[in-house]
Amino acid sequence: MKNLLVLQSDFGLSDGAVAAMEGVALSVDHQLRIYNLTHDIPPFDTYEASYRLLQAVPFWPEGSVFVSVVDPGVGSKRRSCAVKTKTGQYIVSPDNGTLSHIARTIGIESIREIPKTERRTGTLSSQTFHGRDIYAYVGAQLAAGTKAFEELGPEYSPDEIVLLEIPEAEYDGTMITGTIETLDVRFGSLWTNITAELFQKLNVNYGNLIDISVYHGERKVHRSFVTYAGTFADVEIGESLVYVNSMNHMAVAINQGSFADAYHIGTRGSWKITMKPAGPGR
Amino acid sequence: MKNLLVLQSDFGLSDGAVAAMEGVALSVDHQLRIYNLTHDIPPFDTYEASYRLLQAVPFWPEGSVFVSVVDPGVGSKRRSCAVKTKTGQYIVSPDNGTLSHIARTIGIESIREIPKTERRTGTLSSQTFHGRDIYAYVGAQLAAGTKAFEELGPEYSPDEIVLLEIPEAEYDGTMITGTIETLDVRFGSLWTNITAELFQKLNVNYGNLIDISVYHGERKVHRSFVTYAGTFADVEIGESLVYVNSMNHMAVAINQGSFADAYHIGTRGSWKITMKPAGPGR
Amino acid sequence: MKNLLVLQSDFGLSDGAVAAMEGVALSVDHQLRIYNLTHDIPPFDTYEASYRLLQAVPFWPEGSVFVSVVDPGVGSKRRSCAVKTKTGQYIVSPDNGTLSHIARTIGIESIREIPKTERRTGTLSSQTFHGRDIYAYVGAQLAAGTKAFEELGPEYSPDEIVLLEIPEAEYDGTMITGTIETLDVRFGSLWTNITAELFQKLNVNYGNLIDISVYHGERKVHRSFVTYAGTFADVEIGESLVYVNSMNHMAVAINQGSFADAYHIGTRGSWKITMKPAGPGR
Repeated sequence: MKNLLVLQSDFGLSDGAVAAMEGVALSVDHQLRIYNLTHDIPPFDTYEASYRLLQAVPFWPEGSVFVSVVDPGVGSKRRSCAVKTKTGQYIVSPDNGTLSHIARTIGIESIREIPKTERRTGTLSSQTFHGRDIYAYVGAQLAAGTKAFEELGPEYSPDEIVLLEIPEAEYDGTMITGTIETLDVRFGSLWTNITAELFQKLNVNYGNLIDISVYHGERKVHRSFVTYAGTFADVEIGESLVYVNSMNHMAVAINQGSFADAYHIGTRGSWKITMKPAGPGR
Repeated sequence: MKNLLVLQSDFGLSDGAVAAMEGVALSVDHQLRIYNLTHDIPPFDTYEASYRLLQAVPFWPEGSVFVSVVDPGVGSKRRSCAVKTKTGQYIVSPDNGTLSHIARTIGIESIREIPKTERRTGTLSSQTFHGRDIYAYVGAQLAAGTKAFEELGPEYSPDEIVLLEIPEAEYDGTMITGTIETLDVRFGSLWTNITAELFQKLNVNYGNLIDISVYHGERKVHRSFVTYAGTFADVEIGESLVYVNSMNHMAVAINQGSFADAYHIGTRGSWKITMKPAGPGR
Repeated sequence: MKNLLVLQSDFGLSDGAVAAMEGVALSVDHQLRIYNLTHDIPPFDTYEASYRLLQAVPFWPEGSVFVSVVDPGVGSKRRSCAVKTKTGQYIVSPDNGTLSHIARTIGIESIREIPKTERRTGTLSSQTFHGRDIYAYVGAQLAAGTKAFEELGPEYSPDEIVLLEIPEAEYDGTMITGTIETLDVRFGSLWTNITAELFQKLNVNYGNLIDISVYHGERKVHRSFVTYAGTFADVEIGESLVYVNSMNHMAVAINQGSFADAYHIGTRGSWKITMKPAGPGR
């Protein structure tokens, strides 16, 4: 028993909501050690919640318990669930797409539905704050070991998990086409869905120029020739680079600048990026 | 002894102030487990500090120690105090209104004045950073058990606590008039001072329309007919609702939208809200 | 062994980067207790990183381990290092100026170069996220005691540490000239590099007026006559004051207002401030 509980939400940290969740969890077992993944998920953005779980969960010890509450459908028929990942961490969350990246990349070993009866008792029980009254409470029991995963509710098939559409990048023999999944928020680097493995098909080496185009819908909004580099220091300050990011995907950045700000580039939905080796004509 | 210490302030988390407080506390006892309520209280806003304590304190185990430092009068004659709540938590704070909501809603069992001699020794002792030099130090001793509550200084009467004016909502036989105490910050829902109990006097059921008006001073700035719902999923996305929030008060929201942003509505002071059942004329 | 690990970076808390670092550290030893100094250092601002360490480190118990990752030169030849301060804390960081204030004010007892082989093994090892793959991992081992400071790599001379230029304030017999090192971020107070000790040379007492000028480059952008006060409550609300801040340097503030905002004053580089006693002519 590791006693590690990690919280994620779209609640922000400007009011007492997260602290109320922590208090509920520590009332289950005051020895729990609670950490925060992030509480800055944009409101209701289950895709971002899903992505950020993938960014952190695999680095935590087996037995760690994550609670993620980004829940546009609070009070709806969406299920509450607890999952065990194939790498041994647990996640308690609404089954509303939040588990998509983990399910696809790491894999879900087992999933159980949390019954509606599983909630804290006591004053101020609420129909609208399931983060405090259900998810923190259930996650705390799991982290504390006062309830085993198997006791949490009936198992259902991982095939039934609600999955968001996560587009896959494609190589057509000449060029890779992918999407911009998210930004390295503080630095404005584009984090694409192009894996380092797929990028290898371009058969380029460090120092080669990559011909990059960015599209918003059908409209091309940016094109440049960018150095493929191992790390930021391999290019000049203010120079752009393509590199393998910390999640083993291709990213595009300006060394000590913001690529997203510089070229007004957004993420997901209608945004597309292509990469190919720069031709000899340049 | 629970060893739980919870910090709140208006210092933000962008500099080293909160970490300095944590270091002081852990120097008293490095086994303390320190959590943050919020450090985003608007500068000097003791009302908000008071409200956020109420949002979190009741959910924490007995014996938890809160330190709240929102202190427009640092260096003035306002007393420093430690209180024990009727639910068994402790709060260390300037006695400047920060305890208003807790005193009114939960109740203060006992309050003691922290003498000016009670402060950390050592370098960099300061006249302006009582959060680090007094409150974190005293709170840590209480949480660590190196000083009992009774040893903290002379007791005084809970009747002497500095209280901010917290307006009460009123029902005139037809309509409830209340104020907007705060926002559910990230989501823009209006959190009123109208209790769920008072709202019952309107004798309405889930699904009924409520006739809502919002006033800024004397001027009416908003009117709408809003569904009284148990939870967000009971209305459409983009539809407004009146509901019982997680503190058992009435709130007004747009499902997956921001009511405060949509209608430019603020909080406290000159803001007023009325609720009555929508008449048959609509 | 205290098991205390404190993280600082310019990563922000809006994504999963810091949580990934915490997971790596807790995978070394899940008993570690991890705190955050701040993750809001402006991107690549090693001066600010250096300053914020000084604001927090001295207040932590001996044996505490700080990890600071503000690293404009990730992948460059800058060394990774671990230092032991003269007050007994450890700091793991790129040797890129981040240690400047600690080195000058507290002093470095010993510094060791972390060899490039010292990094976590396992999936997703990255050339661009040394915070997760090197610094959190090394800091955790130090905090956990699984590796002694002496085992971390070869020692080098504290004289070789990369130091940023930290200007010293000067007294010319009439007037003190200094710089504005940083702001008390949330409150807009100017924190100068003028020590309380140097200020004593002006031979003034509480209540005396100080003649202050602020320059941006050669241009004077502000002048005022400001009360030298022990603490904020010694002046009226909205009145300016000069006072000794929590780091024993002179600061300039407006009581419950923002001096920096009111007069559009910035920090460092080309900003200069002078202080002298107000003459009898006023």
